[in-house]
Amino acid sequence: MKVFDKLNFIQKLNNTRLCIGLDSQIEKLPDGLPKNIEGLLEFNKTIIEATKNFVCSYKLNFAFYEQYGSKGFEVLEKTLEIIPNNVVKIADGKRADIGNTSKAYAKSIFDFFKFDCTTLNPFLGIDSLEPFFDYSDKLNFVLICTSNPGAMDFQKIIINDKFFFEIILEKLLASFPTHKLGFVVGATNEQEFAKIRKLAQENFILVPGIGAQGGNLESIINKNQNRYLIVNVGRDIIFATHEKDFRSKIKEKTLHYVEQTKLV
Amino acid sequence: MKVFDKLNFIQKLNNTRLCIGLDSQIEKLPDGLPKNIEGLLEFNKTIIEATKNFVCSYKLNFAFYEQYGSKGFEVLEKTLEIIPNNVVKIADGKRADIGNTSKAYAKSIFDFFKFDCTTLNPFLGIDSLEPFFDYSDKLNFVLICTSNPGAMDFQKIIINDKFFFEIILEKLLASFPTHKLGFVVGATNEQEFAKIRKLAQENFILVPGIGAQGGNLESIINKNQNRYLIVNVGRDIIFATHEKDFRSKIKEKTLHYVEQTKLV
Repeated sequence: MKVFDKLNFIQKLNNTRLCIGLDSQIEKLPDGLPKNIEGLLEFNKTIIEATKNFVCSYKLNFAFYEQYGSKGFEVLEKTLEIIPNNVVKIADGKRADIGNTSKAYAKSIFDFFKFDCTTLNPFLGIDSLEPFFDYSDKLNFVLICTSNPGAMDFQKIIINDKFFFEIILEKLLASFPTHKLGFVVGATNEQEFAKIRKLAQENFILVPGIGAQGGNLESIINKNQNRYLIVNVGRDIIFATHEKDFRSKIKEKTLHYVEQTKLV
Repeated sequence: MKVFDKLNFIQKLNNTRLCIGLDSQIEKLPDGLPKNIEGLLEFNKTIIEATKNFVCSYKLNFAFYEQYGSKGFEVLEKTLEIIPNNVVKIADGKRADIGNTSKAYAKSIFDFFKFDCTTLNPFLGIDSLEPFFDYSDKLNFVLICTSNPGAMDFQKIIINDKFFFEIILEKLLASFPTHKLGFVVGATNEQEFAKIRKLAQENFILVPGIGAQGGNLESIINKNQNRYLIVNVGRDIIFATHEKDFRSKIKEKTLHYVEQTKLV
């Protein structure tokens, strides 16, 4: 089944565009959980059990698991096993490499871990992305305009009256089919989001940067005009409290964001 | 000790700029080794034992280990333990993410795996790289111009009579100290290498793309004018033969490239 269809289905089923970012870290675990690798898995389990019937997706950023080496990767593997089959799994690795190596990354993400989607960095050019698009059913979110201040440095350089990221967007749209191609646009870029939404009406856009990073959710929802969208919230949900009864607080925060991101 | 100094020392000691890329893959293991994760580690062990006294560095690309999940990461951990302390270890992950997440990647690479150097992707801007440069002794190689055909797509776009990669190079030189900042320039870009070498005379340049990718080593060595340089050779050394006695063939190939990359 195409992930594009799977994602549309779960968004309608649960009436939400909310994705939870499982950026779990040992040092931030709430009270009552051991501050070790077992605690980390327990934390993910509790979050998933409390929220799996309300969200459309979980996004797992490799960085937070890699920092614990092979034991961290084991937590990643076990966490993925717990996520229900109808909820979309996004690998957030922002990978990029030359063909032969990109192929190994694609094998890791799609064949080994069995993610539905991944995030990709376009800097190395179209051929570096092809091994991911060779998978017929998967959906790839390519970075266009990120939520950090450094997005100014290169992504927003002006070239012949266009932002650099517009040139990337155009090249991607010309290279890959709509149902396999999504974009990452940080929520702090409201004007840029509106521009990108206009240029890519039929593609999914993944929006991080809500909550801890200060993006304006309401403005993004308005500018989206009810097109294909995933809103990722990480820290503001998973680290909602340090208290022992974190499960109920996380569920409460999730339901808040589910309401904010419902389909019109 | 600064990695910059460590790298200069080992290059003088072994009189070579050669780095071996341990891009090991189960399906390409030579005869006599089991085609599994244990065979992979045995392969790396044999290569390191045969070559550790001749090279200046080993580069391990995460992709080839990630494709086997946590078991692959275990091989990465165990391989790093075998590499002698005076040989420089380069993590090739081309990582890039926003600050908080880049920090976790830096922790993974420098604190957990204890690599000396890493490769980085500049697309997200200067602030995304800072967590790596916060380590006082490490050396980071930022992608400037890659060896794949797709380098044309974005890296070589012309902006006000400059290549886009020159703009990145200038920004990096203005942001980070010389001894922490290196560049990745694919060997297939001979003219671009000459230009970059001129602009960054005191920085290390890591050159992949020799051998399987068709870069011209002699031309790069000439254009380098005896400045700081690491030449990476991967497949052309490690997959030199399918035969059971691969150790002697790999050593032979290594010594060939050691001779080609000696300090003038």
